Amino acid sequence: MRRQIVRMEYMKGAVLMSLSFYRFNSSHTQSPLNAANLVIEKTTNPKPKLPKDELVFGKTFTDHMLEIEWDAKTGWGKPKISPYHNLSLDPSTVVFHYAFELFEGMKAYKDKSGSIRTFRGDKNMERMNKSAERIALPQFSGEELQKLIDQLLILDKEFVPDGQGYSLYIRPTLIGTTASLGVSTPDKALLFVIASPVGPYYSSGFKPVSLEATDYAVRAWPGGVGDKKLGANYAPCVLPQLQASKRGFHQNLWLFGDEGYITEVGTMNVFFVFQDPSTGKKELVTAPLDGTILEGVTRDSILELARDRLPNDEWVVSERKFTIHEVKDAAEKGNLVEAFGAGTAAVVSPIKNIGFRGEDIPVPVSLGNSGELTSQVAEWIRKIQYGEEDYKNWSRVAK
Amino acid sequence: MRRQIVRMEYMKGAVLMSLSFYRFNSSHTQSPLNAANLVIEKTTNPKPKLPKDELVFGKTFTDHMLEIEWDAKTGWGKPKISPYHNLSLDPSTVVFHYAFELFEGMKAYKDKSGSIRTFRGDKNMERMNKSAERIALPQFSGEELQKLIDQLLILDKEFVPDGQGYSLYIRPTLIGTTASLGVSTPDKALLFVIASPVGPYYSSGFKPVSLEATDYAVRAWPGGVGDKKLGANYAPCVLPQLQASKRGFHQNLWLFGDEGYITEVGTMNVFFVFQDPSTGKKELVTAPLDGTILEGVTRDSILELARDRLPNDEWVVSERKFTIHEVKDAAEKGNLVEAFGAGTAAVVSPIKNIGFRGEDIPVPVSLGNSGELTSQVAEWIRKIQYGEEDYKNWSRVAK
Repeated sequence: MRRQIVRMEYMKGAVLMSLSFYRFNSSHTQSPLNAANLVIEKTTNPKPKLPKDELVFGKTFTDHMLEIEWDAKTGWGKPKISPYHNLSLDPSTVVFHYAFELFEGMKAYKDKSGSIRTFRGDKNMERMNKSAERIALPQFSGEELQKLIDQLLILDKEFVPDGQGYSLYIRPTLIGTTASLGVSTPDKALLFVIASPVGPYYSSGFKPVSLEATDYAVRAWPGGVGDKKLGANYAPCVLPQLQASKRGFHQNLWLFGDEGYITEVGTMNVFFVFQDPSTGKKELVTAPLDGTILEGVTRDSILELARDRLPNDEWVVSERKFTIHEVKDAAEKGNLVEAFGAGTAAVVSPIKNIGFRGEDIPVPVSLGNSGELTSQVAEWIRKIQYGEEDYKNWSRVAK
Repeated sequence: MRRQIVRMEYMKGAVLMSLSFYRFNSSHTQSPLNAANLVIEKTTNPKPKLPKDELVFGKTFTDHMLEIEWDAKTGWGKPKISPYHNLSLDPSTVVFHYAFELFEGMKAYKDKSGSIRTFRGDKNMERMNKSAERIALPQFSGEELQKLIDQLLILDKEFVPDGQGYSLYIRPTLIGTTASLGVSTPDKALLFVIASPVGPYYSSGFKPVSLEATDYAVRAWPGGVGDKKLGANYAPCVLPQLQASKRGFHQNLWLFGDEGYITEVGTMNVFFVFQDPSTGKKELVTAPLDGTILEGVTRDSILELARDRLPNDEWVVSERKFTIHEVKDAAEKGNLVEAFGAGTAAVVSPIKNIGFRGEDIPVPVSLGNSGELTSQVAEWIRKIQYGEEDYKNWSRVAK
């Protein structure tokens, strides 16, 4: 009945990471999220489908949306799929004032047989629950939400565009909906899922980006929430992005601390490849999950595929701290091989140069528009996403 | 026409603090916010007024609300006061996903002559514009918004409760309303103001609070946005608050860094009073505005009044860094005089003890429920707020 919270004694350290909430599993009256209770109301006014070349990321949406209300007394309500519509909320609702909001980004792909597939949605569900826990919003069974998303995909199947690089971007979102200005744990929430047909991030092959190494604005901090997919992490990054853009760069390369640790790029994780001149061995490096780094699904997939497929005698795959100075030094000595951002939207995004304190660090793009590993990794993931290759059940068919 | 941004060359350092946006003052077609264009639609269905003893902070609202839409092409639209109503927004609206949201907290008081007064609203307007600038939302003339708020107050005058400690809490809010999942500068926004009648924070005198000194979660950091009143700063603080509460404390005392610097308490600024045993002189201390501290209007008012009214030969008023260890040491030696939180909701909130790493630091409350200065400061501010005393035009009569 009441939301129960594990009683904790005082502990210094990463308490937030280990604290578990049990909000719905110990109660007889607070209902768990249950896909079997789904109610579907189909649109009577289907939208026209845009030509593929007119698709803009996140601008147009499918005919339907999924909604599930939650309240602290009764738990999760009946899931409902209904025609895409505005949300009507009291102006005192906590989502407008205190950023009780979090989201996920997933993609659905049409395979050769016409089936709709999602990629590692279980990882998104896991992360979404971690985000929810961190800002005292309710948790839920990820498998049940995946089943519901499958039903939305089947209903809006005609909106999933055909062809390599085309997909349906899925946006599960959880917001606090208590209508009260008190700053406290929301007792009402709404989980909703909308979906937007999208074209390839790069319409004609890769377009490598230039980054500005940013140390005057700081994206995340130990003890903060930079590892969670909270709305709170995004608005504060737009001004530094605008400033970098005014100075001719596409994105920020977020540095941390006096040491200049490399953390992320724009809204993506980031990978660098160094070569050891004495052994010729290459190292694929990304920042470790120390609480300041988003736990990217693409990041995780690249690490797993790289460890599995790159020859051990030629490659080392590392999650470790590294600095902008190490990158600069490697570039000067000819030991920087390539670099790329990694995220759901672009999968991989090759990097061509980094501006750092007025200097330019060139990053090699040996294939013209990307490095070799960047291109290889993109192809590995694409094949799994479009169901051309099976790998550890990472691709799920909606049915 | 276009939003113009000052062209900047690369500078290391606190660029964000000095960067100025000129979004509306250099354009012929982008309209500035103009109170003269106000349109009023009165309610035909007035709400019943709650008995004063049933008022709960931020739960019930007045008959009307103020709204002004903004878009990047045309600027600020016609201000509108209309019956309190839900907001209807597309589910892809950026306020739900990326925390494009900021707010202010102000109070209106009924004076002896029945006039409605606000307290230092110009400071709120100034801070609201700084918050807006930091997350790329539009700025506006603070005086015009104050004029509009005055009109709302006059219309909803009957909702301002009489009596000491009673007031109308005013919540100006600015949200990004672009309906698109792209993470970029919003091209649409909505400024709205709602108001909630509230009772005294302490219904029968002061109730001193116990704090948990928190170092495992970090509220704000250098290069972050902790000095702005953004929604993004609030949701992440609720879980640590819940955890402190489970351990028997009312609020978090937010520490920063290995040194254990004291920054804020809960959602308030914090003041400590130390006594120098060799001279007998007392020091009123609060953390300096270094980018991690909210620029509280109550904080500023207390500093100004204290510098003006406390005798120089007995008091020093300091904005300086100080640590939990200094507080602990002073408490042990008998040199800690009192401590209090400061914010719009409670004005001042006396502190009775601090839990730090399992130990208890007792804080003296010489008057039983508060220290002497705490009580004095509360009375100074109350008199100005209720118009019993004029001080530097801090109180504004709505007309």
